[in-house]
Amino acid sequence: MLSAIKGSFIIAQTPFDERGAVDLASIDSLTEFYLGHGADGFVVLGVSGEGGKLTPEEAQQVSGRFIARAQGKPVIVGVSNPSTAQLALLAKQAMDQGASGVMIAPPGGLRTEVELLGYFATVFGMIGDVPTVLQDFPGSTGVWMSVPSILKLVESHAQIQVVKEEDLPSLEKITQLRAGGGRRVAILTGNNGLYLPQEMGRGIDGPMAGFSHPEMLSGVYRLFTQGREDEAHDLFDRYLPLLNYEAQGFWGVAARKEVMRRRGAIRHATMRMPGPKLSAIHMGEIDRLLRNLERTLAARR
Amino acid sequence: MLSAIKGSFIIAQTPFDERGAVDLASIDSLTEFYLGHGADGFVVLGVSGEGGKLTPEEAQQVSGRFIARAQGKPVIVGVSNPSTAQLALLAKQAMDQGASGVMIAPPGGLRTEVELLGYFATVFGMIGDVPTVLQDFPGSTGVWMSVPSILKLVESHAQIQVVKEEDLPSLEKITQLRAGGGRRVAILTGNNGLYLPQEMGRGIDGPMAGFSHPEMLSGVYRLFTQGREDEAHDLFDRYLPLLNYEAQGFWGVAARKEVMRRRGAIRHATMRMPGPKLSAIHMGEIDRLLRNLERTLAARR
Amino acid sequence: MLSAIKGSFIIAQTPFDERGAVDLASIDSLTEFYLGHGADGFVVLGVSGEGGKLTPEEAQQVSGRFIARAQGKPVIVGVSNPSTAQLALLAKQAMDQGASGVMIAPPGGLRTEVELLGYFATVFGMIGDVPTVLQDFPGSTGVWMSVPSILKLVESHAQIQVVKEEDLPSLEKITQLRAGGGRRVAILTGNNGLYLPQEMGRGIDGPMAGFSHPEMLSGVYRLFTQGREDEAHDLFDRYLPLLNYEAQGFWGVAARKEVMRRRGAIRHATMRMPGPKLSAIHMGEIDRLLRNLERTLAARR
Amino acid sequence: MLSAIKGSFIIAQTPFDERGAVDLASIDSLTEFYLGHGADGFVVLGVSGEGGKLTPEEAQQVSGRFIARAQGKPVIVGVSNPSTAQLALLAKQAMDQGASGVMIAPPGGLRTEVELLGYFATVFGMIGDVPTVLQDFPGSTGVWMSVPSILKLVESHAQIQVVKEEDLPSLEKITQLRAGGGRRVAILTGNNGLYLPQEMGRGIDGPMAGFSHPEMLSGVYRLFTQGREDEAHDLFDRYLPLLNYEAQGFWGVAARKEVMRRRGAIRHATMRMPGPKLSAIHMGEIDRLLRNLERTLAARR
Repeated sequence: MLSAIKGSFIIAQTPFDERGAVDLASIDSLTEFYLGHGADGFVVLGVSGEGGKLTPEEAQQVSGRFIARAQGKPVIVGVSNPSTAQLALLAKQAMDQGASGVMIAPPGGLRTEVELLGYFATVFGMIGDVPTVLQDFPGSTGVWMSVPSILKLVESHAQIQVVKEEDLPSLEKITQLRAGGGRRVAILTGNNGLYLPQEMGRGIDGPMAGFSHPEMLSGVYRLFTQGREDEAHDLFDRYLPLLNYEAQGFWGVAARKEVMRRRGAIRHATMRMPGPKLSAIHMGEIDRLLRNLERTLAARR
Repeated sequence: MLSAIKGSFIIAQTPFDERGAVDLASIDSLTEFYLGHGADGFVVLGVSGEGGKLTPEEAQQVSGRFIARAQGKPVIVGVSNPSTAQLALLAKQAMDQGASGVMIAPPGGLRTEVELLGYFATVFGMIGDVPTVLQDFPGSTGVWMSVPSILKLVESHAQIQVVKEEDLPSLEKITQLRAGGGRRVAILTGNNGLYLPQEMGRGIDGPMAGFSHPEMLSGVYRLFTQGREDEAHDLFDRYLPLLNYEAQGFWGVAARKEVMRRRGAIRHATMRMPGPKLSAIHMGEIDRLLRNLERTLAARR
Repeated sequence: MLSAIKGSFIIAQTPFDERGAVDLASIDSLTEFYLGHGADGFVVLGVSGEGGKLTPEEAQQVSGRFIARAQGKPVIVGVSNPSTAQLALLAKQAMDQGASGVMIAPPGGLRTEVELLGYFATVFGMIGDVPTVLQDFPGSTGVWMSVPSILKLVESHAQIQVVKEEDLPSLEKITQLRAGGGRRVAILTGNNGLYLPQEMGRGIDGPMAGFSHPEMLSGVYRLFTQGREDEAHDLFDRYLPLLNYEAQGFWGVAARKEVMRRRGAIRHATMRMPGPKLSAIHMGEIDRLLRNLERTLAARR
Repeated sequence: MLSAIKGSFIIAQTPFDERGAVDLASIDSLTEFYLGHGADGFVVLGVSGEGGKLTPEEAQQVSGRFIARAQGKPVIVGVSNPSTAQLALLAKQAMDQGASGVMIAPPGGLRTEVELLGYFATVFGMIGDVPTVLQDFPGSTGVWMSVPSILKLVESHAQIQVVKEEDLPSLEKITQLRAGGGRRVAILTGNNGLYLPQEMGRGIDGPMAGFSHPEMLSGVYRLFTQGREDEAHDLFDRYLPLLNYEAQGFWGVAARKEVMRRRGAIRHATMRMPGPKLSAIHMGEIDRLLRNLERTLAARR
């Protein structure tokens, strides 16, 4: 059951070659990189995974490759789409490929709870019995879901097994979701992991985020579950300057891909157009952040 | 050249059967209905054509069928999509099917002229030499384009041959676009035709709108081009109560489909979910509007 | 009790002189004009009354003058303000001046029902026992309130005695509000009266709108309450071309002021900056609409 | 000239007592606290200063008190207001009180460059020769200004002497503003200082932000201007976990006020309603962050 998941879930990047074509070979190295740094599962074709820039056929190739390489770890496929017909198609294809579930965020334009509940009634009527991560990411979708609304959705739709909570701020919402009673779902958090220690303290089941150093996400998770909170905070704080830099929207994703390229996880840092291109100034900023991180980590040992 | 188009272009509905499946047979009767009431061309898979509720395969079937039945009149295919890769694919497919061009509106989330120009540079770089209708419909897209921005887009991209102007209000914008100089493009207007007489007076090339009585759109257009402005206004005013009723967003589209079903243009008034369902009260309102329209038209003869 | 109001409430314009100063003398003639054309009450300092362009002192002058001239008819004062402290101050001042109540719309930025209920709990805690019109006008505020949310607000706050319903479309919402049960409040509708006949048919207590010909609003209201629905529709339809023209946002308000100037209601059609200025083309459009209206009305007699 | 300002400008909190009344005595201690930790100037009545929750009279009291206590350092007063008439009044009052200038952000609802330029033409025509900080804060205002638009505003209005750049991300925009040529204005940055080291590296003139430890803002500024970039980064990184916590919108402001209360800067941490109230969990999170900060700072010595 997806509702019992715990651990460090990675929002996976989609690698492109220098011309912007999907780089399937880099998916292999990237998956290995994630697993080698503690990933307990994956979400592919999310917002920062540039899922929205792919054709349906490319999207299938990408999700299929990740699933094939995930060594049995759960892979969740982002299928949010303004067309419910296309969303249903994508969900079916993902499950046929062997995905553990899908992730759905409400489309822009839903404005009241009535509209929100109506939308998901339609969607879950169409996709049937597919395990689903409900993504609460208003900064990207423009749709704000209150805690009572999320709890109503959970009660109405057994398919929802996980809430990905990445409203900003997230802390109070996590506390209220946990206090809300009703059927238990897993809660994992995004927002690049910027508030992971506090979120763990408020009872989440792990991060669901992207970062060039996934060992921080999995490390903080594991230290916390072992009751070593001070060490978890210390680990987090060391990476925070870089994490903060990678939290600059798509500019942050561009930086993340560049760092992961340097670490050998992918062959090219290319983002598909339309998207940002790092300048020499950005490169200098990244150089310094990595230098400082290395020094901080060395001092710790 | 699409830039020379003139006349009454119909934003075509997509017919569905009672279960919500695409009703291809009704496309045949619908196209005949439109042509029999003065249509000079078509736009298919637009917003009110419920294009966003179709799978890519269904979308192709629908556009293909309309093109096959259009008796040589130009058919423009709506290909707006949050994914530029998918947009490019849809544009290619449409042109391969024999479309006269495509219609593109900017995706939600573009917020400055810089972002707007960047978006279309990417898009036109991808789709190549495809005749394009630029749709200015901020009420639907959430993207506001100023007149200087539209003129810059026209100057930068020879593909733009038509501007569909449906900002609300539209009048001042039409006057400024026409006064803007530069390469001449056709300007047609949407917004359900609510301001068609004034828009014709300000120099547009015709309506590009949907209405259950397309003979009004084509009639107003023709009377205006013959210099019979008073008659054009009179004709428009007779239909305005029903037109106004059909201008209620997707509720208005539902009413329009119901009226067109009664007129024999389509077999079912079904809208695909998620969408509104007319109640008995709506039906009573429509009954009265049609009764009044009939009386008004009879009085005129 | 404001909850028992019925009739034709006018959203009053604020007159300015040619330099943009408040024209108090024109408030006298304007009030007389409204009363002479059937107004049963007033709302001053609303959105289309340019209330947001006044200083607090000017706002007080305007509301005070309207109240002094209203011949005992109820005057409701718009006090919506992003600052709750200032809103409370404005509400107190209005009631001290002799207003019958205040009108409040939620401020931009409220995004969920939880935030909405929290906002009004704060506001009603601050203003105390002041009869209130709750304005549902998402096209202007950017805040969407569902029917269940409005009903919750009504149940929680005895101050709410009227709902001004001007979501677009409004029809289904009116039916649902009336079917919602609970404490009875008056429902009046805005949106320039564009759907007044259907709204009356769905059980509202009258229009709360602005129009250069308030005799249409009061006439449709009275015919409807006398059971003469066909005549009500006929009357409405005659004015609809002009009404539709005046529904073009602030451009429509500018046209309305110009028509009211021509009718002698105010001395100047000036709108305070920033605001639209009518061109010669607009004037020509208005000329024609008034000519057609005169002819249509003459034909009726 | 405001355009020559450099240094660490503090976005000042407004202190309230436990009942929510303005606490003028705490303004004195707060100003002293800021000056004692390196402040080179102040901005009062900004967004995080809860300026929008005050009555006009309270706002005047607050700005007057800060100006009286600022020991000759420049004080800039936030006067953004949806009513241009009220904005002009507030600007006049601020300058009469001895402010060095005003800060203005565009009001929500401006959507194109044409509207933006029109708005500021009106505003600057009304307020006359008042030194102005143009605030670019789309996350709060909902108005996105491109770099070309900002440069046009600077060229058109000599009153603009400072740009407060707090779009997110800010880095690329700073580089482009500096490269844009034209009249030189100061650029200071907000966003709680989250990217201060990189922003300094890209040529800003200092922070214009709020933080419970203003010695970090002034310290980073001074180290950078002395060419001690590595030390500047180190200093910044030590405070980043707390800074990040204080960056949670109004929840972050509540935490900031609590920390400043503990440091003796203000007597009460109260935020005026509507606003967040910290729970015991928040207090525990703040305890830990302060404990960690203390340890980190101790280790450095």
